Amino acid sequence: MNLISKQPNTGTTIFTVMSKLASEHEALNLSQGFPNFDCSPKLTELVNHYLKKGMNQYAPMAGIQSLREIIAQKVSDLYQVNYHPDSEVTVVSGATEALYAAITAIVHQGDEVILLEPCYDSYTPAITLNGGIPVYVTLTPENEYKIDWSIVKSKITEKTKLIILNTPHNPTGTVLSEEDLNRLSDILKDTNIFLISDEVYEHIIFDGLSHWSLLRNPVLKERSFICGSFGKTFHVTGWKVGYCLAPKQLSEEFRKVHQWLTFSTVTPIQYALADFLQEPENYLSIPQFYQEKRDKFLTCIQDSRFTFTPAKGSFFQCVNYEKITQENDYDLAIRLTKEIGVASIPVSVFYHQKNDFKILRFCFAKDDETLERAGEKLSKL
Amino acid sequence: MNLISKQPNTGTTIFTVMSKLASEHEALNLSQGFPNFDCSPKLTELVNHYLKKGMNQYAPMAGIQSLREIIAQKVSDLYQVNYHPDSEVTVVSGATEALYAAITAIVHQGDEVILLEPCYDSYTPAITLNGGIPVYVTLTPENEYKIDWSIVKSKITEKTKLIILNTPHNPTGTVLSEEDLNRLSDILKDTNIFLISDEVYEHIIFDGLSHWSLLRNPVLKERSFICGSFGKTFHVTGWKVGYCLAPKQLSEEFRKVHQWLTFSTVTPIQYALADFLQEPENYLSIPQFYQEKRDKFLTCIQDSRFTFTPAKGSFFQCVNYEKITQENDYDLAIRLTKEIGVASIPVSVFYHQKNDFKILRFCFAKDDETLERAGEKLSKL
Repeated sequence: MNLISKQPNTGTTIFTVMSKLASEHEALNLSQGFPNFDCSPKLTELVNHYLKKGMNQYAPMAGIQSLREIIAQKVSDLYQVNYHPDSEVTVVSGATEALYAAITAIVHQGDEVILLEPCYDSYTPAITLNGGIPVYVTLTPENEYKIDWSIVKSKITEKTKLIILNTPHNPTGTVLSEEDLNRLSDILKDTNIFLISDEVYEHIIFDGLSHWSLLRNPVLKERSFICGSFGKTFHVTGWKVGYCLAPKQLSEEFRKVHQWLTFSTVTPIQYALADFLQEPENYLSIPQFYQEKRDKFLTCIQDSRFTFTPAKGSFFQCVNYEKITQENDYDLAIRLTKEIGVASIPVSVFYHQKNDFKILRFCFAKDDETLERAGEKLSKL
Repeated sequence: MNLISKQPNTGTTIFTVMSKLASEHEALNLSQGFPNFDCSPKLTELVNHYLKKGMNQYAPMAGIQSLREIIAQKVSDLYQVNYHPDSEVTVVSGATEALYAAITAIVHQGDEVILLEPCYDSYTPAITLNGGIPVYVTLTPENEYKIDWSIVKSKITEKTKLIILNTPHNPTGTVLSEEDLNRLSDILKDTNIFLISDEVYEHIIFDGLSHWSLLRNPVLKERSFICGSFGKTFHVTGWKVGYCLAPKQLSEEFRKVHQWLTFSTVTPIQYALADFLQEPENYLSIPQFYQEKRDKFLTCIQDSRFTFTPAKGSFFQCVNYEKITQENDYDLAIRLTKEIGVASIPVSVFYHQKNDFKILRFCFAKDDETLERAGEKLSKL
């Protein structure tokens, strides 16, 4: 049998490669973005409660009512904008599904989609599998990954259907500002271009910065699919429950795809999350929690020869290693895993073309001892 | 904003419509295919164990090792065929995702896919969203939904890339035989046509019949994606954990899609299922359990004016209502829900074109009291 690949250039994701290598070499795994500490015991207790209560059959396709309601309530409390829980909030099997479903709902054969790279590795294949054409705007470490909106504007053609944004940003830890939103809305206000905003690190933002969700700008909100993740916020990346906020007509098309992708999402976990979200402190405490993690990691590498700008959000810190070595980032990430026992992600994999940026991404969602041990090892370089 | 729908003719699925209507009218819900009884307490206890143990971060993309191993072991024990757990078994977020991922992996723009209708409602949109063209072979109640393989063969063209099969069959309760597999392998042996086999009701098969999984025929196995569901087998449809078995090269392409659709699947539930599968009695007891359900339901409607051939598998019983009324099945299903308080699914929705078959599908995965009360109501018609 000869199966012609639709993704001939796709290998195993870098996250799988690095996590496997870390495991084989018993390295400290600061590569894949997941915490090495556990969630609140209240949360697992709630899941257990609903498991025992027999909430084990299909959830409604769009998610259970109480979870959609509390999500709408939370967004209203935080940002003073309204999404109707019946028609504008959809619970899905992780933000990765939300991204794929939104892209599938929007992108027709031949449509162009503007991506700001570096970006999460699922965006491009989700676009091309749906017949779309990715158009890249390259952000560089020299410029601290700032977005030049005039370049974004220059990439817009008659075929442009969609722009994908991500704030707080993986891998760079940058965030969009109110000014960014204003610039973008000026560009888009008279167009029929849609937005997907990957905001899975919504609550992981530092130094008192406000999260500028795209939904805070009315011109952007009306055209946006906002993708959120409970896995990131509550330290349960393995539960795979996320959601999508979008105006009614957009949500309708989103749901039409979601129902064929996974149909519905783990029922007892949805009930548990609905209860857990009733207590705002459970998410309002997250920025401080992760800021301490970031600061801990930065303290641990401050005497190293890595250079960096502190991450403003996400649980990733990018570092420049030019003072240490001139080898490429992929080789270095492999070598550090094998030789000094610290796994990271080479940032070049977040670009569509080879490049020579000398940047590694470290995940600091780890317990303090792990961060200290990693810092010690990295400081010897 | 104007979002051009890629699915202009898709509404809400019939399952969502009927379950909602059943709820509004407090009808007995024999429509959507889920049990109204709970799973084994051993199983929820296992999930709780792994929740508490902190198994709450990303599972490996292809599923946890122990679950892939026990799935391979089970298939080997039951059917004496081998799938390598590392490269040929993939755990996904429900069989619906398995179907979508397999279709996405195979179908290129313009490829034809042969479907035997009536069929599950996700097949056609998954094909068309990927640019494929569904080609239908219509099975009819007059002929007890038997497959005329010469008709299937006559539909094959140079563009045929894939055939999708389903055994035990939803909604009709029919099953494929060894002879069916032989006929199909004669047709396909010199072709490059792939197969997806939806076998989510593998363990729900009656009257001592053997499940003729496509993997039992070597010519079919080498070209098949076999989709399975733990939700159906263990009465936990809301957990959304399924799997796909396929030869190495096919699994590679399947995984490349899965990693962008959901990336990975609920970790603590994967661990629990791996343990639960260690005891074969947990699935070997299922045929007898559901046969008693089927027989109970048939006893309850034996004095009604419905006519039927007992289901050979699945947890659905189709009935003909021509002796009762000549109205179409959709109207009747709505009316029965509102007026007599029993929800069902009109079988016409499983066909791509309007038809005049007078058939309703009832789900008998319900407790005995529900089946008795439904039987009483239905017998008054």
